[in-house]
Amino acid sequence: MHPQTPAYAALAADCARLHRLEHLQALAQWDRAALMPPRGNEARAAALAELAALLQGLQADPARGERIARAGHEPLSPAQRANLREIDRDWRQARALPAALVERREQASARCEHAWRTQRAANDWAGFVVNFRPLLAIVREEAQRLADAGGCAPYDALIDRYEPGMTSAVVDRLFADLWQWLPGLIAQVRARQAAQPVAVPHGPFDVAAQRRLCERVLRDLGFDFDAGRLDVSAHPFCGGVPEDVRITTRFRDDDFLGSLMGTIHECGHARYEQNLPAAWRGQPAGRARSMAIHESQSLAFEMQLAAHPGWVRRLAPLLVEAFGAQPAFAPEHLQRLLTRVQPGRIRVDADELTYPAHVILRYEIERALIDGVAEADDVPALWDARMQALLGIDTRGDYRDGPLQDVHWAEGAFGYFPCYTLGAMYAAQWLAALRREQPGLDARLDAGDLQPVFDWLHARLWSQGSLWPTDELVQRASGEPLNPAHYRAHLEARYLGG
Amino acid sequence: MHPQTPAYAALAADCARLHRLEHLQALAQWDRAALMPPRGNEARAAALAELAALLQGLQADPARGERIARAGHEPLSPAQRANLREIDRDWRQARALPAALVERREQASARCEHAWRTQRAANDWAGFVVNFRPLLAIVREEAQRLADAGGCAPYDALIDRYEPGMTSAVVDRLFADLWQWLPGLIAQVRARQAAQPVAVPHGPFDVAAQRRLCERVLRDLGFDFDAGRLDVSAHPFCGGVPEDVRITTRFRDDDFLGSLMGTIHECGHARYEQNLPAAWRGQPAGRARSMAIHESQSLAFEMQLAAHPGWVRRLAPLLVEAFGAQPAFAPEHLQRLLTRVQPGRIRVDADELTYPAHVILRYEIERALIDGVAEADDVPALWDARMQALLGIDTRGDYRDGPLQDVHWAEGAFGYFPCYTLGAMYAAQWLAALRREQPGLDARLDAGDLQPVFDWLHARLWSQGSLWPTDELVQRASGEPLNPAHYRAHLEARYLGG
Repeated sequence: MHPQTPAYAALAADCARLHRLEHLQALAQWDRAALMPPRGNEARAAALAELAALLQGLQADPARGERIARAGHEPLSPAQRANLREIDRDWRQARALPAALVERREQASARCEHAWRTQRAANDWAGFVVNFRPLLAIVREEAQRLADAGGCAPYDALIDRYEPGMTSAVVDRLFADLWQWLPGLIAQVRARQAAQPVAVPHGPFDVAAQRRLCERVLRDLGFDFDAGRLDVSAHPFCGGVPEDVRITTRFRDDDFLGSLMGTIHECGHARYEQNLPAAWRGQPAGRARSMAIHESQSLAFEMQLAAHPGWVRRLAPLLVEAFGAQPAFAPEHLQRLLTRVQPGRIRVDADELTYPAHVILRYEIERALIDGVAEADDVPALWDARMQALLGIDTRGDYRDGPLQDVHWAEGAFGYFPCYTLGAMYAAQWLAALRREQPGLDARLDAGDLQPVFDWLHARLWSQGSLWPTDELVQRASGEPLNPAHYRAHLEARYLGG
Repeated sequence: MHPQTPAYAALAADCARLHRLEHLQALAQWDRAALMPPRGNEARAAALAELAALLQGLQADPARGERIARAGHEPLSPAQRANLREIDRDWRQARALPAALVERREQASARCEHAWRTQRAANDWAGFVVNFRPLLAIVREEAQRLADAGGCAPYDALIDRYEPGMTSAVVDRLFADLWQWLPGLIAQVRARQAAQPVAVPHGPFDVAAQRRLCERVLRDLGFDFDAGRLDVSAHPFCGGVPEDVRITTRFRDDDFLGSLMGTIHECGHARYEQNLPAAWRGQPAGRARSMAIHESQSLAFEMQLAAHPGWVRRLAPLLVEAFGAQPAFAPEHLQRLLTRVQPGRIRVDADELTYPAHVILRYEIERALIDGVAEADDVPALWDARMQALLGIDTRGDYRDGPLQDVHWAEGAFGYFPCYTLGAMYAAQWLAALRREQPGLDARLDAGDLQPVFDWLHARLWSQGSLWPTDELVQRASGEPLNPAHYRAHLEARYLGG
């Protein structure tokens, strides 16, 4: 590393301090979702709001703006310059939001998310919308302020927080192209699969055995339990800090696939975090690049690897060990089960082909909410209409597995959903690049050996943190910019080939 | 509440802010002890050190000194004046310690405590002392600075942090008096018990059943699971915040009494915290009064209530339900088991009569360490000599169940140990006062009804927070100052009476 010049050094020290305080924030958020008893919520919300305001104050300190300008004229290494680029980005975003707004947002989202946990189970949209209306108002204000500062549209300002540089114009084009061919593919695959009966696993599936299975699979997939944990929460997620990654899942005794595939998904996020560049720990350049790149890791694990025939053969005996033998656990049946296409109501349980419909629906609705084209109370009707149009499913009256199914909006996280499908596109692109580079890859995957994939992801993405803008990272990793043709090719090969 | 006057109002707002940030500190400390994987320790230590320095800076802000002086001239209610007294105390203690020292201490204690976890299991004193020496040096510096600011001896300054107003002169007198009559009582009781054989429970005791038993007993003892949790840690403790109290225990499958009695002990702490005055939440006047008063709650639960024949009769069928029937679970045998006097190496497993010997030993050694009369490397020899003298036990070469058995020194917590025996004295005094006030008390306890005790503790102690100095609290609660005669009378009645 270059010696640190004065302004840059001061900025880096600030970042290290912010990182240490953000550690406490990440822990308290994880604990809230995974462990906190209900009566702790008010105090926790107040504590997190206090910390958010404190962090905001440190991040938006006007002195940092001057330092950023001075550091721009200092002799920096390319990596330091990348770090400065990210510092500048953080500072501009922080400057755009007054501390009082950040604190109000923290309080409103804590209230809405906490109540959502019981409202979801109770199918209580009417109760939810009471907290959701004021939260939406705050998020709109936030979006407007970020848009004013960034010179873009409000919803684009929200996407940009998760996926720097992405715009709704690009997402519109990608999703419109996708929906040109995907419904036809879904219909074709469903017709084909109708002739291939699938053996359904019979429960109950002991929850302790499910937990052991998930832990075993996490170890197989390289999750480091000395630097992380697996726990339970209402909505699975990957949280914590790179040094101590906390992933969660949820168990139902009538289904083991939900917890298992959810755990595999979160494992992709976790390995990205656990393998970010240690030399840049605590600096913005050491962070995961973006949420679409993050989702490309979880989807590479869940969709590319876990449904690969080689890995399915490796999984089959583990299922027998966990739950006893049954016909459904034969590799060929398991393979069918894991690739069965069946439109359903729930995004996180959706198959690879119908998943984008769930994302497109949410993208359309949340954009309308931020643009003021729709109001909080309009969501159920919009949901019903779009679920009918996209997947032919009648969701009327079902809020639980309708608009209440995800935690995102309850937390005020708008602009995130597109990252899932962008991530699926990137995941296909990584595997396509790796196949070009290593023609023997599928033979190794067929043998259940995933190491070449982990090594490639580590070298090209995990270890790169935020040292490059997304476009450049993607180009360097795969030799081309985002190219959704790989996603289509992957789906056609997996579902129509062979 | 009186209207808040300007300087007082500003101080109260500061306190609320500190309370919100201390929430995050309490959570991160609890998580470190209960859940955190090993590779998370370095980042956690850095985060906690950052927060400690931040809190220290807020607490020691010179502007608060001026406000405290101004508030002293404002028209305050008696309760507000009590709050101001506590604010002033906190401020003086914070002013005495430079932020850099607080941060160094936080780092050194995190390192020492974390390594202790494995060193204890490995009986590795030589490894432990490497971290313990620099930690002791920091604690001595801390003690000297607090002593200079408070005009007292260094070790007294450390006691005062846990037990405001207490001095080693008073502890010396109390412990010397105690050790006049206690060895004779121990000998007398042991001779008597030699003729009363005790049926030993036979394991293994299923850990899941132990956990369910502990949860059941916690519910019976009034612990609010909507505002708290039970988890596992190497050293049981009660942490978290009043709104979300986290207690821990540890399970061994060859013994259920350790986890059960430990849980009951922590439940006393937990109910105190859960029932502190809500109107004063976040203000120093709303805190638990002191650690001796805190230990008087845990020891009232563990020693006064859990060994009472009425409660033992209530416990017996729960044990049968948890582990199946065996002779040792008959109430009369259980009673003997819970009151069996048997000198041993481990403080937390000690019976009520030999427990003070463990405290006296630690008190003598830690005082010598702080006074510079002994060094870190002298501890094992001092330990062996005093265990031999006080309890006739040879502990040479056993560091695991010798000086490494407690987490206190590994965390740099010197001055705490006397609070256990002071707490036992107070606990006896509370029950004596309650018996005087309610002559029918024992009939209700005999029937397994503990509610009168909970009600009394709630009214006289829990709900009073820190509204009174300790002496006044004790006088108001029990009608007299600390009077160790009740402790002696309790022990003689329980172990020689009946």
